[in-house]
Amino acid sequence: MILINGKNCTELSVSDRGFQYGDGLFETIEVLNTYPILIDSHLTRLASGCKKIGIPAPDKQLLLHEAATLSQNISHGVLKIIITRGSGGRGYKPPDVIEPTRILSRHPFPDYSPSFRQHGITARFCQHRLGLNPALAGLKTLNRLEQVLARAEWNSPEIQEGIMLDLNGYVIEGTISNVFFVKNDILYTPLLTQTGIAGIMRDFAMQTATANGVKVEQGLFTAEQLLAADEVFVTNSIIGIWPVKQLESQFFPVGKVTHSLQTSLAQFKQQVIST
Amino acid sequence: MILINGKNCTELSVSDRGFQYGDGLFETIEVLNTYPILIDSHLTRLASGCKKIGIPAPDKQLLLHEAATLSQNISHGVLKIIITRGSGGRGYKPPDVIEPTRILSRHPFPDYSPSFRQHGITARFCQHRLGLNPALAGLKTLNRLEQVLARAEWNSPEIQEGIMLDLNGYVIEGTISNVFFVKNDILYTPLLTQTGIAGIMRDFAMQTATANGVKVEQGLFTAEQLLAADEVFVTNSIIGIWPVKQLESQFFPVGKVTHSLQTSLAQFKQQVIST
Repeated sequence: MILINGKNCTELSVSDRGFQYGDGLFETIEVLNTYPILIDSHLTRLASGCKKIGIPAPDKQLLLHEAATLSQNISHGVLKIIITRGSGGRGYKPPDVIEPTRILSRHPFPDYSPSFRQHGITARFCQHRLGLNPALAGLKTLNRLEQVLARAEWNSPEIQEGIMLDLNGYVIEGTISNVFFVKNDILYTPLLTQTGIAGIMRDFAMQTATANGVKVEQGLFTAEQLLAADEVFVTNSIIGIWPVKQLESQFFPVGKVTHSLQTSLAQFKQQVIST
Repeated sequence: MILINGKNCTELSVSDRGFQYGDGLFETIEVLNTYPILIDSHLTRLASGCKKIGIPAPDKQLLLHEAATLSQNISHGVLKIIITRGSGGRGYKPPDVIEPTRILSRHPFPDYSPSFRQHGITARFCQHRLGLNPALAGLKTLNRLEQVLARAEWNSPEIQEGIMLDLNGYVIEGTISNVFFVKNDILYTPLLTQTGIAGIMRDFAMQTATANGVKVEQGLFTAEQLLAADEVFVTNSIIGIWPVKQLESQFFPVGKVTHSLQTSLAQFKQQVIST
């Protein structure tokens, strides 16, 4: 089911600027027992992204209402929200009056093996280096060709994620996830001021770790630093927290920080669906 | 009129990867007396871009046929071709069998004042700095949010173009054009290996200048070097060649290199439409 500006349909005008220029943003949200998990955080990020690129943010109550409509009877699924600058304008120039396009769609939950969460995934380094773009860094825009190219680098189902470095050789993120590592009991994650997407689950993991008494540091880290970690894990709103058991030829245990964050996340979700 | 995979329609599935991720490329072509100008160059660039990002290039004869269909009875207009990776795949991962979406659309020719071509335009520098992205540099992808943000910086109809610098402070291009300048009889244009779109009219201008005995150099140039030029002009496939008469508070004459290239372009178009 897809709601485009509140109407149940599946097609969109070719003139939409989301299609013409990638002129928009999106959110991907887990739905569990009819509850869109962390929806407030997602809508806050969406509104903040809209402000940053000059699209009038859609009404929050309307989004919540439509999200609830799409989440009805869903025991486990994915809700995607796309906001574009709509149609009109003259070439790249936005129209004087922007009428955003609002698309909410629901999708089956991907059939990830439970072992990914329990025992960890295998990851590789991608060849594609993320470009540097501070003006758009952190935002989940519709300009995602880099992730497509990085994800096209491998086909083996044995590898679940690719870790991307930026032009300067710093670790930034996975193709669909943010990356974390633990070294000497400190939790590290890449600073996303030059490129990358600041995920909602990344925020959750940082906040929860801090609340659990784990020191969290954002910074610029090399592939070598990542490979020398005690624990590595990746996060996104759909996968939650996946330990990385292998990155290239390096093996990692499912460590105590990773495990504790997974437990906190499971407890958080349990609370949400019991309300 | 819009042809989507050969069919006359105006809407596209929301699931198209062009919309979801900007996973595609486009070309914008002037149509003059039913002739799509420089269409061979456009289709060559399109095929080369498709190869680079792993989309099977659509059949050239088919594109030529559809371009001719849309150009019928058009005395002056614009033809736009969009190629996307189509629908399918799993998230960013492209589908095993890619079935590209092919969209050809025609549009009225913009009502540019003839004085832009004759006497030149007024330009400004944009605040937005182009990100660095060598893997996609040169390509006209559907990831164009940066140009949208740069073009949204000004609203005054007195200013026709914004010149964009990259993160390192080098001049790259205009929001819709490539930029050239002449200094001491040498024609300079930014090297587009880190960012920017390598325009078809940029190629035409470089080749024609060389054929006319003008030395052409690509390189990295600062805003100061551009402001100190003897002549400045911008190019794209729709505007052709526009002299820049004013950039910020600096004035430029319509110089002899600019004028000679404009004459060559006019002669070239005359030849095309007389065949």
